[in-house]
Amino acid sequence: MSWLPIPTGSHFSLANIPFGIISTAANQTPRPAIAVGDHVLDIQAFSNGGGFSASSEITEHASCFESTTLNAFAALGRPFHRATRSYIQSVLAADTEHAKLLKDNEQLRNSAILKRSEVQNHLPLAIGDYTDFYAGKNHAYNVGVLFRGPANALQPNYLHLPVAYHGRASSVVPSGTPIRRPWGQILRPGDKNPTLAPCEKLDLELEMGMFICRENTLGAPISVNDAEDHIFGYVLMNDWSARDVQAWEYVPLGPFTAKNMGTSISPWVVLADAVEASKGPGIANETELLPYLKQDSKDTVLGIDLEVDVITAEGNKTTISRTSSRNLLWSWPQMIAHHTITGCNLRPGDLFGSGTISGTEPGTEGSILEQTKGGKIPLKLEGGEERKFLQDGDTLVIRGSFGSGDAVVGFGEVSGTVQAPLPLF
Amino acid sequence: MSWLPIPTGSHFSLANIPFGIISTAANQTPRPAIAVGDHVLDIQAFSNGGGFSASSEITEHASCFESTTLNAFAALGRPFHRATRSYIQSVLAADTEHAKLLKDNEQLRNSAILKRSEVQNHLPLAIGDYTDFYAGKNHAYNVGVLFRGPANALQPNYLHLPVAYHGRASSVVPSGTPIRRPWGQILRPGDKNPTLAPCEKLDLELEMGMFICRENTLGAPISVNDAEDHIFGYVLMNDWSARDVQAWEYVPLGPFTAKNMGTSISPWVVLADAVEASKGPGIANETELLPYLKQDSKDTVLGIDLEVDVITAEGNKTTISRTSSRNLLWSWPQMIAHHTITGCNLRPGDLFGSGTISGTEPGTEGSILEQTKGGKIPLKLEGGEERKFLQDGDTLVIRGSFGSGDAVVGFGEVSGTVQAPLPLF
Repeated sequence: MSWLPIPTGSHFSLANIPFGIISTAANQTPRPAIAVGDHVLDIQAFSNGGGFSASSEITEHASCFESTTLNAFAALGRPFHRATRSYIQSVLAADTEHAKLLKDNEQLRNSAILKRSEVQNHLPLAIGDYTDFYAGKNHAYNVGVLFRGPANALQPNYLHLPVAYHGRASSVVPSGTPIRRPWGQILRPGDKNPTLAPCEKLDLELEMGMFICRENTLGAPISVNDAEDHIFGYVLMNDWSARDVQAWEYVPLGPFTAKNMGTSISPWVVLADAVEASKGPGIANETELLPYLKQDSKDTVLGIDLEVDVITAEGNKTTISRTSSRNLLWSWPQMIAHHTITGCNLRPGDLFGSGTISGTEPGTEGSILEQTKGGKIPLKLEGGEERKFLQDGDTLVIRGSFGSGDAVVGFGEVSGTVQAPLPLF
Repeated sequence: MSWLPIPTGSHFSLANIPFGIISTAANQTPRPAIAVGDHVLDIQAFSNGGGFSASSEITEHASCFESTTLNAFAALGRPFHRATRSYIQSVLAADTEHAKLLKDNEQLRNSAILKRSEVQNHLPLAIGDYTDFYAGKNHAYNVGVLFRGPANALQPNYLHLPVAYHGRASSVVPSGTPIRRPWGQILRPGDKNPTLAPCEKLDLELEMGMFICRENTLGAPISVNDAEDHIFGYVLMNDWSARDVQAWEYVPLGPFTAKNMGTSISPWVVLADAVEASKGPGIANETELLPYLKQDSKDTVLGIDLEVDVITAEGNKTTISRTSSRNLLWSWPQMIAHHTITGCNLRPGDLFGSGTISGTEPGTEGSILEQTKGGKIPLKLEGGEERKFLQDGDTLVIRGSFGSGDAVVGFGEVSGTVQAPLPLF
């Protein structure tokens, strides 16, 4: 329990302590903060006001909080994140020695504790490279059926390696950023030549994202059992997708402009340690894996409960999907091991996407493409509305958490509203 | 003519003035410089010593040279690059008013003019995102035949849009960086399951690279006829490729780990203005293009003469390819227009690759894969050596230039040596 009131069920309980970058009307310089209940703790103000004075280890590295991104904090590594999280937990907990540092210091409380509703969130890290995996086997199968038919739905390599492609880092945006419906090249059914038109099949993709903290040298792969040390933490992700553009452009080199209009992420990075307890088995894989993908533990896949809401311009709100991140074939350590097997160097702030997460039952799919069987069967929404794909004015909200009561570890949400296309040139 | 001796035929004539980042034994802080003949001009030392005092415009922005990358200089835009290049040309030219600023200032000469052989080159820009196009139609056809057979060599979209995929920015390295032969997943012919082994089909890809200078806002495409304003300049590129890894992994989302062990670029960025005169027609395309890809001019493709040398561990040097960058189907402005059509934002320092440049005749191909028909017909080297793919100890050198005599505009070279694989873990 905290001396600071935290509503029961809050995603940002004392068990969480997620990090983000905020600014306020009074101080528009982006700076590190943590979310706790309906408040945030401005870590820069806390640090400058002597909040870390009881830890020489954190004080020594406190310059990492004098930054507009979390990259410097991330680069200090998991033991440092663990120490910082634990320290802040003790400062916020009732009846601890450290509590007096903040609870009994009115000036510091006034400068460092802010209402969460009054802060603006920014991208938590400067993203070097963004890689999007395809580890949601049910999604890969469902989409494979739609794009290539059931016989070729999963390619021969799918069960042997975590398939992935490089995404676009510049177009990753924080929750709340509107997404402009893109123009793009589309080959309409029956046409011989493509058309330039606003996307007619705009979709979401429900994913989780992971940020890298520790770098490796070019040429030096990371072993799967060391990979956890390279994980900073996790976010929710909506990898907006122009399905009609994608279908025409993606052969042979993969998705490109169909994904570049925006990828939304939730603003608070939930540290790797905070979700450790959610781990369990992912989707079973009977394939004999190559040694570099074999993990010592079998319970390596995060178990985050996920939900997707659509809120229409008319105000109708429908939860269109409920699923779990256990619907992944590969763990994050396996993705790291595969990403680096040919020697690729990862850097603090690199972002991985999991790929779309879908269950096997109706109402558990992580994209509208799957829910409507490629736009054929309309999705029923509240208020009698229907969707084959997203309409202008639709707001997508993804939520995720695990645990219950006063110990929920949650991500808050990632949201975005579809804007009408602008005229071209 | 310059008062500084410049050898006839030098890639770094007064007509060039390419920008890079250097350090020296005496000053190990990376800083901007230009290459001229066998020398470099340390632009930071030149600026701090009053070298730009005759231009209030450049002096006003001279803080852009107080940086370890060229990103700030690039972001100032093409008119500023043009003014700076022209100013430096006049400082280096004989018989100009500006010449005395350096020629007659012994102290500044001593601090700012260095021997090129004594400087170390670094990556010229911090690369945000790296995109690799596939605009070399002859290469796309040749490789398509090998991977998918002649009937499907070029996909239906190929002539309608500049096909591309996102590459890995972190593994772009400057010329001279050794390339470690990667381990990777390989499906050997006749095998049912993949093997983890050092790459057995390591190859080069002869490409040109382009750096972006001017950003656009997410959601706002760049029109093809405005796109030149977004081009900072060009480099040579070797997009090292593990063909066996690539063949197994690339379906359906494109190349990934097969390209992540390193992409080498030449160190001097040749400004867009410096190669303007090389422009002419690219490969003819009879396809009716969508309006956003139609350019006002027909002479829009750079004409850079390109050569590839292999130097073996035994010291045998063979020029294995001679071709021209006219062997591209798409111009850089068309690539920019397509890259941004769905709203993707480009940032200063973003790097585009052209795709492999191959001619149609034997000895003009930009990869060994093509020259050996997929490793079937050995490539004959000097000294009786042969190659089906690259061996450990092989050094690859790519050169490129246009013009002749005292007005050559060249890129110098990009080189890299293949190192034996390290043991795994």
